[in-house]
Amino acid sequence: MSIRLTEEKVFKDPVHRYIHVQDKLLWDLIGTSEFQRLRRVRQLGTTSFTFHGAEHSRFNHSLGVYEIMRRLITNFSDKPMWNDEDRLLALSAALLHDIGHGPFSHSFEKVFDTDHEEWTRLIILGDTEVNEVLRHVHADFPKEVAAVIEKTSANKLVTSMISSQIDADRMDYLLRDAYYTGVSYGQFDLERILRVMRPMDDQVVVKASGMHAVEDYIMSRYQMYWQVYFHPVTRSSEVILSKILKRVKALHEEGYPFKQPPHHFESIFSGAMTINDYLQLDESVMHYYFQCWQKEDDPILEDLCHRFLNRRLFAYVECHPNERLTDIMALQELFWEAGMDADYYLEIDSSSDLPYDVYRPGEEQRVPIQLLMKNGQLKELSSESDVVESISGKKRTDHKLYYPADTIASLDSSIRLKIESILKQM
Amino acid sequence: MSIRLTEEKVFKDPVHRYIHVQDKLLWDLIGTSEFQRLRRVRQLGTTSFTFHGAEHSRFNHSLGVYEIMRRLITNFSDKPMWNDEDRLLALSAALLHDIGHGPFSHSFEKVFDTDHEEWTRLIILGDTEVNEVLRHVHADFPKEVAAVIEKTSANKLVTSMISSQIDADRMDYLLRDAYYTGVSYGQFDLERILRVMRPMDDQVVVKASGMHAVEDYIMSRYQMYWQVYFHPVTRSSEVILSKILKRVKALHEEGYPFKQPPHHFESIFSGAMTINDYLQLDESVMHYYFQCWQKEDDPILEDLCHRFLNRRLFAYVECHPNERLTDIMALQELFWEAGMDADYYLEIDSSSDLPYDVYRPGEEQRVPIQLLMKNGQLKELSSESDVVESISGKKRTDHKLYYPADTIASLDSSIRLKIESILKQM
Amino acid sequence: MSIRLTEEKVFKDPVHRYIHVQDKLLWDLIGTSEFQRLRRVRQLGTTSFTFHGAEHSRFNHSLGVYEIMRRLITNFSDKPMWNDEDRLLALSAALLHDIGHGPFSHSFEKVFDTDHEEWTRLIILGDTEVNEVLRHVHADFPKEVAAVIEKTSANKLVTSMISSQIDADRMDYLLRDAYYTGVSYGQFDLERILRVMRPMDDQVVVKASGMHAVEDYIMSRYQMYWQVYFHPVTRSSEVILSKILKRVKALHEEGYPFKQPPHHFESIFSGAMTINDYLQLDESVMHYYFQCWQKEDDPILEDLCHRFLNRRLFAYVECHPNERLTDIMALQELFWEAGMDADYYLEIDSSSDLPYDVYRPGEEQRVPIQLLMKNGQLKELSSESDVVESISGKKRTDHKLYYPADTIASLDSSIRLKIESILKQM
Amino acid sequence: MSIRLTEEKVFKDPVHRYIHVQDKLLWDLIGTSEFQRLRRVRQLGTTSFTFHGAEHSRFNHSLGVYEIMRRLITNFSDKPMWNDEDRLLALSAALLHDIGHGPFSHSFEKVFDTDHEEWTRLIILGDTEVNEVLRHVHADFPKEVAAVIEKTSANKLVTSMISSQIDADRMDYLLRDAYYTGVSYGQFDLERILRVMRPMDDQVVVKASGMHAVEDYIMSRYQMYWQVYFHPVTRSSEVILSKILKRVKALHEEGYPFKQPPHHFESIFSGAMTINDYLQLDESVMHYYFQCWQKEDDPILEDLCHRFLNRRLFAYVECHPNERLTDIMALQELFWEAGMDADYYLEIDSSSDLPYDVYRPGEEQRVPIQLLMKNGQLKELSSESDVVESISGKKRTDHKLYYPADTIASLDSSIRLKIESILKQM
Repeated sequence: MSIRLTEEKVFKDPVHRYIHVQDKLLWDLIGTSEFQRLRRVRQLGTTSFTFHGAEHSRFNHSLGVYEIMRRLITNFSDKPMWNDEDRLLALSAALLHDIGHGPFSHSFEKVFDTDHEEWTRLIILGDTEVNEVLRHVHADFPKEVAAVIEKTSANKLVTSMISSQIDADRMDYLLRDAYYTGVSYGQFDLERILRVMRPMDDQVVVKASGMHAVEDYIMSRYQMYWQVYFHPVTRSSEVILSKILKRVKALHEEGYPFKQPPHHFESIFSGAMTINDYLQLDESVMHYYFQCWQKEDDPILEDLCHRFLNRRLFAYVECHPNERLTDIMALQELFWEAGMDADYYLEIDSSSDLPYDVYRPGEEQRVPIQLLMKNGQLKELSSESDVVESISGKKRTDHKLYYPADTIASLDSSIRLKIESILKQM
Repeated sequence: MSIRLTEEKVFKDPVHRYIHVQDKLLWDLIGTSEFQRLRRVRQLGTTSFTFHGAEHSRFNHSLGVYEIMRRLITNFSDKPMWNDEDRLLALSAALLHDIGHGPFSHSFEKVFDTDHEEWTRLIILGDTEVNEVLRHVHADFPKEVAAVIEKTSANKLVTSMISSQIDADRMDYLLRDAYYTGVSYGQFDLERILRVMRPMDDQVVVKASGMHAVEDYIMSRYQMYWQVYFHPVTRSSEVILSKILKRVKALHEEGYPFKQPPHHFESIFSGAMTINDYLQLDESVMHYYFQCWQKEDDPILEDLCHRFLNRRLFAYVECHPNERLTDIMALQELFWEAGMDADYYLEIDSSSDLPYDVYRPGEEQRVPIQLLMKNGQLKELSSESDVVESISGKKRTDHKLYYPADTIASLDSSIRLKIESILKQM
Repeated sequence: MSIRLTEEKVFKDPVHRYIHVQDKLLWDLIGTSEFQRLRRVRQLGTTSFTFHGAEHSRFNHSLGVYEIMRRLITNFSDKPMWNDEDRLLALSAALLHDIGHGPFSHSFEKVFDTDHEEWTRLIILGDTEVNEVLRHVHADFPKEVAAVIEKTSANKLVTSMISSQIDADRMDYLLRDAYYTGVSYGQFDLERILRVMRPMDDQVVVKASGMHAVEDYIMSRYQMYWQVYFHPVTRSSEVILSKILKRVKALHEEGYPFKQPPHHFESIFSGAMTINDYLQLDESVMHYYFQCWQKEDDPILEDLCHRFLNRRLFAYVECHPNERLTDIMALQELFWEAGMDADYYLEIDSSSDLPYDVYRPGEEQRVPIQLLMKNGQLKELSSESDVVESISGKKRTDHKLYYPADTIASLDSSIRLKIESILKQM
Repeated sequence: MSIRLTEEKVFKDPVHRYIHVQDKLLWDLIGTSEFQRLRRVRQLGTTSFTFHGAEHSRFNHSLGVYEIMRRLITNFSDKPMWNDEDRLLALSAALLHDIGHGPFSHSFEKVFDTDHEEWTRLIILGDTEVNEVLRHVHADFPKEVAAVIEKTSANKLVTSMISSQIDADRMDYLLRDAYYTGVSYGQFDLERILRVMRPMDDQVVVKASGMHAVEDYIMSRYQMYWQVYFHPVTRSSEVILSKILKRVKALHEEGYPFKQPPHHFESIFSGAMTINDYLQLDESVMHYYFQCWQKEDDPILEDLCHRFLNRRLFAYVECHPNERLTDIMALQELFWEAGMDADYYLEIDSSSDLPYDVYRPGEEQRVPIQLLMKNGQLKELSSESDVVESISGKKRTDHKLYYPADTIASLDSSIRLKIESILKQM
C-alpha cells in the first residue's frame, strides 16, 4: 500500500534542520495545488506588523508539523497497535491539518461566519488534487484523514497526536513562530519530549521523567500567547482588517458602485462559495483588492485600506466592556458627532487564553497530558506539576478598546478634548 | 538638525536581536507608504520555491542594513571627519537603499529593461512621502541620500559603507538569508568585523588583526551565491516568471482579448510608467494576475501561470550555449515540431559570480577591502590572504538549459525519444 | 581616579559573544593570582558527572557577571545618583563576588564548617594582589567592594545589582550553565531585561513592560534548579565527596599513618587556615590527593576515592527522613551487620529551593523584584504575575537516600535480600 | 555477540543535543577507569588561557566522536559489506581513539619523546579495564580496535571513518572546539555531510551533491587552525610548560634537592614508565606539582611555574629562525649577560598546517576526500573545488620568538635597550 520514494527527498528547514519525505503519498500531497496555495497564506496573518520577522507561510508550518509527526512515530514502529496505514494516516493528517485555512483566517471567519475546519473537510473530501492523491491509498482514506483532523475518528491515538494539549501542531508552531519572530519564549526541548512520548491505548502519554520538559513547553505556550499571538498591535491590524471586510460587504449589499468590484468575494457574500472560489481567495488576492480600494470614493473603505496597507493602525486602551459601558456609549455618541462612523472606528477586542486545560465533563476540550509513572499508573500533568497547576484552567482575558488616535488628533479641539478625556481616564 | 525620539523605539529582529531607532527622521522614513510597501516584496523573490523558509521581505532586510550601519558608526562618533549629518546620511541611505525594488526584480528588470536603482532615485527625489520626510533635514538632503545610493556622492566614506566588497547591505543579507533559509553557510562574526572597521579618508578599512574574520565573510558570500542565490531550482522558477511576463507583453501587443487585462502593466508596456504606477506593482498584485491568467484561453500564458503558482517547474541540464549550439538548435526544431513554443519552453540561464573583486582600472567595480597593517600601511586583502587570493577575480559561470520534462514525458514516443536522447547526452 | 586602557581588551565568550574590559583596574584584577586561581575551580563542582559539558570554571562565570554588570550600567551613566566610583565599585564587586570559592564548595563547606563568603572578604581585605590593585582606587576601596559583596554596604543600589532576585550573578550563571550543560531551560531574553532595568533609589527596578521577560527568567531559574543543580546523580557524587573529606579528617584525628599525608588540609583540620593555605587548595590539589588515597590501606578512604575518580556513584531512592525513620535505622543496623560503615555508606541528602521569595519581615531574604508601572508606582512582581505568584515563597524539598547498590549486590544473599526489600518499598 | 541495553542511555550534549548509547559494550567502556580519566585531561590543553571557554575535556570530545560515528553508520546498516562486528569495531575505535592522551600532550610528548598513539595501543592491549571489556566481544577484538586506531587494520573502511581528511574525530573537534571557545569559525552542516557519505570499498566517499558542505568543512578546519589551535598566546603558555618539564628533568638529573620531588615523573625520566604510571599522570597531578614547585629554591623552576599558574606569559614577535639567525644569537648573548638563562627564556615556536592534503606517493598522509559523481566515477575533491584546490597541499608555517617582556622591562636600561632594539626591528 505504501510506496517508498526511490530516494528520500529533503527540505532544508530552519527549525528542524531537515524535513525528510520518504513516501510517494506525502510527496504527491505536497505537490498538489491546494497544498502549494498555503505558500500564499501567512501563518500568523497580520503579526508581521508587530514582529517583522514573522512572514512565514502556512506551507512552512505544515511541513514542520509533518516532520514532528514523522519523528514521533519513528519510535512507534515496534508497537503492536501500530501499522503502516496508521503511519500514513498520521503523516497525511499532520501535513493537511491546515489545508482549509484562508487568508487572515481570524478576521475572515469572524466577518463571514465561516470556518477553516469545515473547508479542510471539504478540500479533503471534494473534487480536488488532494482527494485524488489520498484515494490512491484506498477509497475511504480521504474520509479517514478528514475524521482525524475533525476529531471524529475512531482512531483516537492518531487524533491525539494532532489535537491534544501537546501535539505535533502546537509543538511546531511554538518553535517556528519563536524562530521567525526572534523571541526567545518559544524554546523547549522537542527532542526530549519526543523521546518520552509513548502510545498507550487511545492517546500518547509522557513518561514521568520528562515532566519538566513538558512544563517548559506549557510555559512556552503561555508566554507565546501573551507576548506574540495576542499582542495588542497585531490585534489593532486585525480590527482594521475586519472593518474592511465588513465595509465591503455592506457596500456590496447596498449596491455601491465599486471601481474595482469585489468579484472574488461575491460568492461568499451570497453564501454560495465553492471550494474553487475559496481556494482562489489567498492573501495576494486580498492585498490586490485592498490596494485597488484605496482609490474608491467611499471614505471609510478608502481610509481603512490605506491604514492596513501602510500600517496606520488604531491606538488602544485597556477597557473592560461591562465595566465601561457608559464611557463606551459616550464615545460612540462623540464619534458620530465628529463624523466618525463608530461602527468602523471604535472596537472592543478581547483575547482569552486557557494555557492548560484539564478535562471537565461536558465541556469541549483538548485531551489533557497524562504522565506515565514508574509504577505504570497514569497521572494527569497538573496533579504533579505545581507550575502547570497554577495556570491550569485559569482563563485570562484581555480587553482593549481600539480607536484612530491620529484622526482624533486632527479634530476640532472642543470635541477632541472630550474624546481624549474619556480615553485618558480608562 | 537631528531630532531624537523621546524614547528609543525597538524592533525585535531574529538576526540582530533588536533594531534600535533613536531619530525621528528614521522613524518617519520607516512609516512612509513607500517603505511599508517593501513588506510586499520578498527579499529573495522565488527562492522560497527551493528553500521554503526564505519568505522574508525587503522591509525585513532594509531594517537590518540600517541596524548594521547604526552599530558600525557608533564607533565613529569621535572621529574628526565625522559629523551628525554624516550619521543621518549613512542611516538614511542604509534604510532606503532598496526602496526602488519591485517584485521579482531579477526577472522583471530583464523583461522590461528597467532598473531598480533608477527607481530608487526617482522615489527619493520625486513627489513621495520619503522625499518629504528627507527634506525635513534640509532641501538638498534627498539628493545627497540618492547620490550615496547611486555611488555618485562626493562623500565616498559613507558610500563605501553601503557599497563596497564589505558593506552593511551585504553583511545583512548574508546573515539574514542564511537565517531564513536555514543553511549554515552565511555565518560570520559580524560583531568582530564591526569592531575592526575604521573610517580612513575615503573608505572604511579593516584592522589586519581582523583578517580572518573577513576571510570568513568572503567565504560565506561565495557559498551563499552557489548554494542559495544561484540554486538551479530557483532559477527554474525565474525562467518561468520571465516567460510569463514576456508572453503577457506579446499578447498585449498583438491585441489579445484578455479576460483579465494587464491594467497594472500597461504603463510599463507603453514606456510611460510613473512612480505611482510602479509603487502599486507589488508581489501581491503580480500574484493576483497570475491567478487570474490561469483561466485565460491562451494555452501558453495559462500553462506558465499554472506552473508558477503550483510549482510545476522546468527541469534542467548543464549546457554551455556555445559548445552545444547544434544540440540546442536541434531541440528547438523538435520543440516546434511537437507543438511546444521553444521561445517559451526552452531557455538557457547563466549565472556568474565574482566572489571578490580587486580593482582593475577601467572596470566598474566595488571598492576592494583594505587591511590596515600595524605599521599604518594599507594592503589590499587578497595580497595577504591565500584563500581570498585563490577566488579573487575568478568569475565562475554556470549555464543550464531549462525545459518542461513533464510535458515532454507526455509526448508521442517517437519525438519524445529524440528529445530525451539529446538531453541525456548533455 | 579611573584609568582607561589605551585600547579596550576583549575576551571571546560563548555566552555574551565578547567581554569588554576598558579600565586598567579591572584588567589588573583579572591578572591577579587570586583571580587566575578561579580557573582551577569549576563553577558547578561535580555536575559534570551528570552533564559532561559542564566543565567550566568560576573564572569563566566571573568574567560573565562582570560583563552583564558592564552592560547594565552603560544605561545608567546619565542618572544623577550614579558616578564613576559607583561604576568601578559595581564592576569590581561583580568580578570578585566569587573570589572566595574553594573547590567543590558545597561539600567542602559542609564538612569543614567554613564559608566562601568569609574567604571572599578575607581575600579582598587581606595581604593579597587583589587588595593591592583595589587600593589603587583609594585606601578604603577594598572595604567598599567587600561590603557590597557581603550586602552590608550603604550603597544598596550597587548591592542589589549583585545580590537580589534578579542580579548580574544569577543572570550569568543561568545562561552560562545552560550553555555548557546543553539544556534548553536556562534561556531568557537578557538583552530585553537589561533594557527595562532602571536604578531607583536603593534598588534596580524593572519597567512593567518587561514583566514577561522577567517571568521567563524566574521560570528558567526554577527549571535549572530542579533539572540541573539538584540533579540526584550530582548529589550522589557530592555525598561521596563529603564522605571522603569526613574520612580523611577522622583518620587524621586518630593518627592514621597516611602514605600520602593530607598536608594541604592540616591547617583547616586544626582551624588555623591562612589565606595562603586556602588559596592553594584548588580542585587540582584535591584531585591529586584523591588519586594518591586510592592506594591507602584504609578500605573506606580507598574505596570512596576510587568511587569518586571513576564515577562509581551511589544509587538513591526517595526517602523522607522523618517518615522513614524506622526503615533508615533498620538499614543502618543491616549495614553494620554486613560490614559497611553506615556513617560513610548511607546518607540522606535534601535539596530545597525557593524559586522566588517575597519579602517576609524578620527573614533573611533577597530583595524582591519591583515593577515600575506606567503611572510611576512600584508593584512587587508576584502581585502582578500569576505564574510567579504560583511558585512564590513555596519551598520545595527533595529528600533522597544514597547507598552503594554495587556493594550491596555483592553481599551474601540473606542480608542482601533484607536490605533490598527495605529499599524497594521506599 | 552484541548485547543491547534494555533501555537506551542518553547523555545531554551541547554539540549533538543527545548522545545515545544502545550497546552494553559501549556503556561498559565509558565506565572504565581509563576512560573516566579523560575527564581530567582537557581537550585543548592550554587554550583556555586564550579562549577562557575552552575548558572541556577529552572525555567530552570522545563521546562526541562516538556519537558522530553512530549517526554515520546508521545509514550503513543495509550495505552488504557491513555487519554487526564492523559496527562495534567502528564505535569502539571512535570512543577510544584518544584514550592514550596524557595531560598537555603537545608539550609533554615533545619533552619526553613519547607518543599518545603508542599509549593508546598499550592501554587497549594491556592489563586494563578497557581491554577486559573489549575481550567480551572476542579475544582478538582489542587488537582489532587498536589496529583501526593505529591505521594498520585490514579494515580500511572503518579506519577511514576515524582517520581521513573528513572523519568522525575531526568533525567532532571542529564543532566542539568552536562551541566551547565561542568562535563562529567551526560551523558546518554536519547533518548534511553525514547524509552524503557512502561506504565504498575501502573508504567512505561523498556524493558530489554535498561538495559545498565539504568545502565549508575544509574552510572551517583551516580557520580553526589559524584562529584557535595555533593562537600565539596559547603557544606562549605551551612554551612555558615545555620549559617547566625540561627544567624538572634537568634538575632531577643533576640531583637537585626538591622540596616536592617529582615522584610521578620518575619512571618517565628513567624510561621505565608503566601503563599504570602513565594513567596516574593527569592534569590535576601536573597542576599539583606546578603549585608545589612555585616554592622551590631553583629560581627558574619557581618562576616558570608561577608564570604558568598565574598566566604571566611570554611576549612574542614574528621571527623566521633562518632569516634571523644573527639576531637570535645576539639576543641569546644578551640574555646570558642579563642573567636570564636563554635555554629557558628564549624560544622559537613554529606551527604548520596542511589544511587539505592530496595523496602524494611515498608520503605519510591521510586518505583524501573522494567525490562520488552522478555517473558513478570518483573524483578527488581538490580537482573539483576551486577553493579547496587553492589551499590544497600548501603548507603554511608561522614562526614566533617568545621571551619574557616583563622581566626584560625590569632590567638595567643599558642592556634592556639593546634587547628591545633587536626585538623591535624583527
